[in-house]
Amino acid sequence: MVLDPTKHADWEIAEEAESRMKTVYQLRDELGLEEKELLPYGHYVAKVDFAKVLDRLKDRPDGKYIDVTAITPTPLGEGKSTSTMGLTQGLGKRGKNVIATIRQPSGGPTMNVKGSAAGGGLSQCIPLTPFSLGLTGDINAIMNAHNLGMVALTSRLQHEFNSTDAFLERGNLKRLNIDPRNVEMKWIIDFCAQALRNIIIGLGGRRDGFMMSSGFAIAVSSEVMAILSVAKDLKDMRERMGKIVVAYDKRGNPVTTGDLEVDGAMTAWMVEALNPNLMQTLEGQPTFVHAGPFANIAIGQSSIIADRVALKLGDYVVTESGFAADIGFEKFWNLKCRMSGLTPNCAVVVATIRALKAHGGAPLPMPGQPLDPAYSKEHVEWVEKGCENLIHHINTVKKAGINPVVCINAFHTDTDNEIKAVRRLAEDAGARVALSKHWQYGGEGALEFADAVIEACNEPNDFKYLYELETPLRERIELIAKEVYGADGVEYTPEAMEKAVRMEKDPEIQKLGTCMVKTHLSLTDNPMLKGVPGGWKLRIRDILTYQGAGFVVPVAGAISLMPGTAANPAYRRIDVDTETGKVEGLF
Amino acid sequence: MVLDPTKHADWEIAEEAESRMKTVYQLRDELGLEEKELLPYGHYVAKVDFAKVLDRLKDRPDGKYIDVTAITPTPLGEGKSTSTMGLTQGLGKRGKNVIATIRQPSGGPTMNVKGSAAGGGLSQCIPLTPFSLGLTGDINAIMNAHNLGMVALTSRLQHEFNSTDAFLERGNLKRLNIDPRNVEMKWIIDFCAQALRNIIIGLGGRRDGFMMSSGFAIAVSSEVMAILSVAKDLKDMRERMGKIVVAYDKRGNPVTTGDLEVDGAMTAWMVEALNPNLMQTLEGQPTFVHAGPFANIAIGQSSIIADRVALKLGDYVVTESGFAADIGFEKFWNLKCRMSGLTPNCAVVVATIRALKAHGGAPLPMPGQPLDPAYSKEHVEWVEKGCENLIHHINTVKKAGINPVVCINAFHTDTDNEIKAVRRLAEDAGARVALSKHWQYGGEGALEFADAVIEACNEPNDFKYLYELETPLRERIELIAKEVYGADGVEYTPEAMEKAVRMEKDPEIQKLGTCMVKTHLSLTDNPMLKGVPGGWKLRIRDILTYQGAGFVVPVAGAISLMPGTAANPAYRRIDVDTETGKVEGLF
Repeated sequence: MVLDPTKHADWEIAEEAESRMKTVYQLRDELGLEEKELLPYGHYVAKVDFAKVLDRLKDRPDGKYIDVTAITPTPLGEGKSTSTMGLTQGLGKRGKNVIATIRQPSGGPTMNVKGSAAGGGLSQCIPLTPFSLGLTGDINAIMNAHNLGMVALTSRLQHEFNSTDAFLERGNLKRLNIDPRNVEMKWIIDFCAQALRNIIIGLGGRRDGFMMSSGFAIAVSSEVMAILSVAKDLKDMRERMGKIVVAYDKRGNPVTTGDLEVDGAMTAWMVEALNPNLMQTLEGQPTFVHAGPFANIAIGQSSIIADRVALKLGDYVVTESGFAADIGFEKFWNLKCRMSGLTPNCAVVVATIRALKAHGGAPLPMPGQPLDPAYSKEHVEWVEKGCENLIHHINTVKKAGINPVVCINAFHTDTDNEIKAVRRLAEDAGARVALSKHWQYGGEGALEFADAVIEACNEPNDFKYLYELETPLRERIELIAKEVYGADGVEYTPEAMEKAVRMEKDPEIQKLGTCMVKTHLSLTDNPMLKGVPGGWKLRIRDILTYQGAGFVVPVAGAISLMPGTAANPAYRRIDVDTETGKVEGLF
Repeated sequence: MVLDPTKHADWEIAEEAESRMKTVYQLRDELGLEEKELLPYGHYVAKVDFAKVLDRLKDRPDGKYIDVTAITPTPLGEGKSTSTMGLTQGLGKRGKNVIATIRQPSGGPTMNVKGSAAGGGLSQCIPLTPFSLGLTGDINAIMNAHNLGMVALTSRLQHEFNSTDAFLERGNLKRLNIDPRNVEMKWIIDFCAQALRNIIIGLGGRRDGFMMSSGFAIAVSSEVMAILSVAKDLKDMRERMGKIVVAYDKRGNPVTTGDLEVDGAMTAWMVEALNPNLMQTLEGQPTFVHAGPFANIAIGQSSIIADRVALKLGDYVVTESGFAADIGFEKFWNLKCRMSGLTPNCAVVVATIRALKAHGGAPLPMPGQPLDPAYSKEHVEWVEKGCENLIHHINTVKKAGINPVVCINAFHTDTDNEIKAVRRLAEDAGARVALSKHWQYGGEGALEFADAVIEACNEPNDFKYLYELETPLRERIELIAKEVYGADGVEYTPEAMEKAVRMEKDPEIQKLGTCMVKTHLSLTDNPMLKGVPGGWKLRIRDILTYQGAGFVVPVAGAISLMPGTAANPAYRRIDVDTETGKVEGLF
């Protein structure tokens, strides 16, 4: 009774599968969770009390840890989330106790044009409606915690402006002298609201706030989200929550959420959000959906807490790192695993014939426009040339000391000769290669993929970081640029250089992780350059710090923290069946 | 082991009681709910699938329906929520199958100075932390639904401004010609964010929105919240969601959420929120917490759905109507009951000796300032004079044809002579009177109160509306002004008069309910006038329409839809115990 993905929309497939999905009580029993460790949110979604589980199972060895990353994608995406779900289902079909850990989508793309990234076809995370529409409220909690910080900042500016020192002292408030022209933090909302990108606030009289420029970012780009993704536990989150730099005072000293005395209340809004959310694949494997930080100013991956819990409960844990291996896997490797102390066993590089052709010289696909006919015909030479990009990413995984598996995410237009070329070249580069048809056939289509991953996981590996925490900032950046991106070196704008020099002298900053910002559409910092470009230098424009999240962020590309809603967005086609209560039109 | 409320903060009392509270599974069994009708959110809060329950119990007669309202309060509040919880606990002590239905608090007051209105002392709703911090996410759902409407509005303005007709037609979009200077709807956020009250949005380039003035209101003032409070079911909510007027076009015609094609997606965010939230009193009586609309532009009361479900499940249902009887009870009577078709059996008028003294001539209490010593000494003459206000509200309840009960919410400074005076005067006016000590003693202190309510409920009554839906708008306003407020008549500004005349000719508008805006601090439209002022006319400044919620709103007072955060707000004292995960400092 499974629906055919060539004939049905993702939401129709999800809805059909949901009619016979497991309850969270079944999942609880299968996972061996105790009753009090499961916090149901309805009958098909639950939170898991991570602190109780980690305490109970602290002596149990971790399962195998698999990261799914990709070659440099086209703007159409190459099915990484679908492959993550497909691999999980394939491992399930092979009888393995497997758990997936994935990100929670933002309401912005879900209501706009991208959709909710629950996978696709016969490889999806369900139930789709809560997945797409806020789940158990973690992003809303982030929104409330973050915006409460902004309320504290803006009302403090107003009250300090309006009041005498004597009045402030009566309320036990010290004058912070915040510089309204040097405010780092913006408000957040979880939609693509370009009209709120640049705003002026505080118009009106003396009780209507303090007039200044401000703006909104999308909620998932919040530092509070970044904190949720890396926090080890509640104590760690509480400490981080007080370190967020919201602005600078008139002397240039940072003003934090702790200085505003709002960090405790911000944490209060976040306590429940720390517990990962339990869902399932279309074929019933448990799936933790937890945190969804932006990839450009944070790790862009699901939470450390979810991975820790999953590794105690599962023999195989499949997670996903946003974008291509140069972005997602590099952050998984040097940031997420370092912060968690967890050791991966294998990394999957997802490739499509389409993207390989694009890297090999075919006309670049553009979203919203018909695909060039070149993509529906055999072009082995483009595929072979494009494999240079794939091999570059295979080598990146090997530099981390773990075993690469290439997953060719099958399309019906792929030809045998094209597939053979990829197999040959990737195997020569030292990777296992599997053709996978999980989109069309679910876990049954991912058996070769699952087998390759099982083999790779059970082979010895030697996981090691690219740099140590003692490595100075500019050396770290150079290592990433040369070893991961294939650059010849690094150039800095004068502003960025000044910051780098200053940061290298600050032992507090030196301890932080390095989280690069660069386009995912090229190995270089120019999104138009495909394949493996040579003879270029990475240009660092600026260096940001997120002290709560614990990142120094060298910026080698544009950061847009508020996408825009298109003229023809998805919300036009979303509705509710008022008889059944079911939501239609999500994807 | 119950804590003494004279020595412990509300949150400490709540925390102690929570250590032995019932699970939602126990509450489910006590209520006779079926397994699938309960949607747990953790083990101590649940949603109840109202559609399933109402369908299963459609033939069961309703329980007794009790509204708790009050005399005209001082700005300190007179303990209406505490009395609602106390009465519920008292009826529980008398062995009755009783359910309370109350509003969900807004994050704004909870983080600012007012607190979360869960009751107080030994009469509270628990667990306090989820109650205070967003519960199951209904307000967040409202925020997302509402703000998605604003995204649709603002991005449409931008795309129409930037694009040719041909481009719009390709996306199947018709030009709406929205007038950016005639936009009704604002964004919402659930905090007191005065800095966002008046803002300019859309600064930047042509892809950064359309530049215009805008602003944020507090989330609970949203028309989407008003809809949640009055919707009968999902179908009704879906229809209302498309009727919200967001702006006017350049010819002055209304532009709705339906015109923006965003009403289906807005409803999708709200499906779960329609199910009422199940909590409990400190003594374990089931309590539905659902919706929390502003009292000044909506009914200011918990939802119709929650009351409908509670009346099927309970023999006694205690609900609360915001502010004094002239505001809260009048809306309960002529709006909420008319929309629900439910018939109340009794209304409680809560009075304190403090407020009666204020009405009788004592110096007016001011928040944040020490209470005048007059309030801690016996002043029977002030109490007697102040009873004029109480009697006025008793008469209002009698005009609705139901039985009034006066609850004297006891303070330790009250004297026997003062209490006796109230008893005598209120009984002479035809009310039952009970002294109640539920704040200090919980249900045990509310037995006299419970007995009076049981008697009143079991006496015949003759519920009738003040006006019929056929009554023209100005006649309705005059009836409310004269019969409920005690005015001599009504005056209109020219603008309001023009609107009234126009609306009376529109049969669609004529069908809507009439929802007055007036201060709750006086029977008149001047908050400084206490007691029962005579010789005044109600002045109508404007008349608004909320077509989604179904209200015409005559405005006889200032409407502030975005409160301000004070210099010394509650969030400074809220924190989390990182060992236990418990939130401290809520009240």
